[in-house]
Amino acid sequence: MLALTILGNNSAIPAHGRNPTAQVLQTQDENYLIDCGEGTQVQLSKYKIKKSKINKIFISHLHGDHYFGLIGLVTSMALSGRENDLHIYGPAMLEAIIQIHLDAATTRLPYKIYFHIVKEEGEIANDKKLTVTAFKVNHRIECYGYKFTEIKNPRKIVPDLVKAYEIPEVYYKELQKGKDYTTKKGTIINNAAVTIAADSAKSYAYCADTTYDESIVDKIKGVDLLYHETTYLKDLDQRAAERHHSTTLQAGNIAKLAVAKKLIIGHFSSKYDVLDDFLTETRTVFENTELAEEGVCFSI
Amino acid sequence: MLALTILGNNSAIPAHGRNPTAQVLQTQDENYLIDCGEGTQVQLSKYKIKKSKINKIFISHLHGDHYFGLIGLVTSMALSGRENDLHIYGPAMLEAIIQIHLDAATTRLPYKIYFHIVKEEGEIANDKKLTVTAFKVNHRIECYGYKFTEIKNPRKIVPDLVKAYEIPEVYYKELQKGKDYTTKKGTIINNAAVTIAADSAKSYAYCADTTYDESIVDKIKGVDLLYHETTYLKDLDQRAAERHHSTTLQAGNIAKLAVAKKLIIGHFSSKYDVLDDFLTETRTVFENTELAEEGVCFSI
Repeated sequence: MLALTILGNNSAIPAHGRNPTAQVLQTQDENYLIDCGEGTQVQLSKYKIKKSKINKIFISHLHGDHYFGLIGLVTSMALSGRENDLHIYGPAMLEAIIQIHLDAATTRLPYKIYFHIVKEEGEIANDKKLTVTAFKVNHRIECYGYKFTEIKNPRKIVPDLVKAYEIPEVYYKELQKGKDYTTKKGTIINNAAVTIAADSAKSYAYCADTTYDESIVDKIKGVDLLYHETTYLKDLDQRAAERHHSTTLQAGNIAKLAVAKKLIIGHFSSKYDVLDDFLTETRTVFENTELAEEGVCFSI
Repeated sequence: MLALTILGNNSAIPAHGRNPTAQVLQTQDENYLIDCGEGTQVQLSKYKIKKSKINKIFISHLHGDHYFGLIGLVTSMALSGRENDLHIYGPAMLEAIIQIHLDAATTRLPYKIYFHIVKEEGEIANDKKLTVTAFKVNHRIECYGYKFTEIKNPRKIVPDLVKAYEIPEVYYKELQKGKDYTTKKGTIINNAAVTIAADSAKSYAYCADTTYDESIVDKIKGVDLLYHETTYLKDLDQRAAERHHSTTLQAGNIAKLAVAKKLIIGHFSSKYDVLDDFLTETRTVFENTELAEEGVCFSI
């Protein structure tokens, strides 16, 4: 199971008590941070999400509302005595930006940062729990979305049943892969008779900042949860296009085309204090939509 | 009259709902920002202090808890359509740090920033309201404190009285300077008979981050309000010295030696949740002490 907590959902300037973009995707053991606007470390504390469990950070692009909180988080991790490696995925300039801040304070971090430059589409990370792929979105500066897919657990062996069928332990790995077992006498023990299916692999796609662009649909097809920005309501589609952002109807349409199971919307312009219309409008196109409200945790 | 509002008072890491260092000194027309930790722009909004009235920002040193909020403020000012010049006073590297962030986003600001490198003691700014002098404090990296002194208003002419004594308008400027007026017949009209004294010029000294160092006393002598850091309580004087910070008793002692009228203390270590002991301890040395609590406005 995955869980996504929203730490910030406002665009450009913090306003109306809303913070700039940051989200955290949680597995049982690890927190994956997605974008890191100013104040993210405070939001992490507020929602009791452990910094120490963040080992990978994904930055979509270098507009400040998506990464100005990164240097604060990096140095606070150091002050908290972190020793584990930290992996940061994002645009090439990130390393120089972090470095100039560290140089200015003559800071030597007690842990190591590995910068992974994201400059093309494809798989960028793969640990035992998740694979992460980057896909280009269409924004004023180079910008990537990220898709997180659980690595499917093997089938679970039922101890009493494998013993009852006298299946030797050396075959367990094959059973977990879904294979049947053939006894010495030639009897076939059906896999389903001694194992049960694992939970299905869940997926989450984060489309960052983007204008309406159907070319992303193939990259996010069938995800369980989709985040698409809605900087503006539907009447401002021209402004959205000019500024490389999207409207409610456009986000709904992408979710529909991608056959996403659920859509969350965010990156609201500071011109909107109340967000109700975002939900109403988007739902006219894609019913299963929710606001990416700060502090809300979506289980996937 | 001056007014100082505390926006952040915690050291190193935001904690216990406390933010990193930032303060704003207000005259009737202008807001002078002193240090700018992460989240300062949010704190400014929270306490209804106008960003548009900030024309001068003073950064003491390049530890992150004193300036990581600067780039966010600079870009938010741009997004709010600012056109007025902004003057930033601080260490030499600040310009390169701000520039790399702007370059990364290909941002062109709609207003001009003038960087003023503070690398020696003395007067660094002087407008019609205030003079600002920088003085070295004793920290791990180069660090300056700032003293703000009101420019004394001229004496105020009492219109009815100057008319009654038939003093020509051309002499008004001399009267404002405190000079007497001699009539054609040789009668001396005492200045005090036709003018009243202006409010006395007030002063505020911000000592930034510093170890106990009596050499700063001469630079801040007799100020109306003094801010001195108290990162630690008195029992941790050794740790304070090692980390180039100060304790409660040390701050109180500096205020006493400087014959300050009032002392405020801040930059509390995150290890302290409750701050009562800071006040109690400092007051044993210097009675007129207050905590630099966030949101509190000290009139000077």
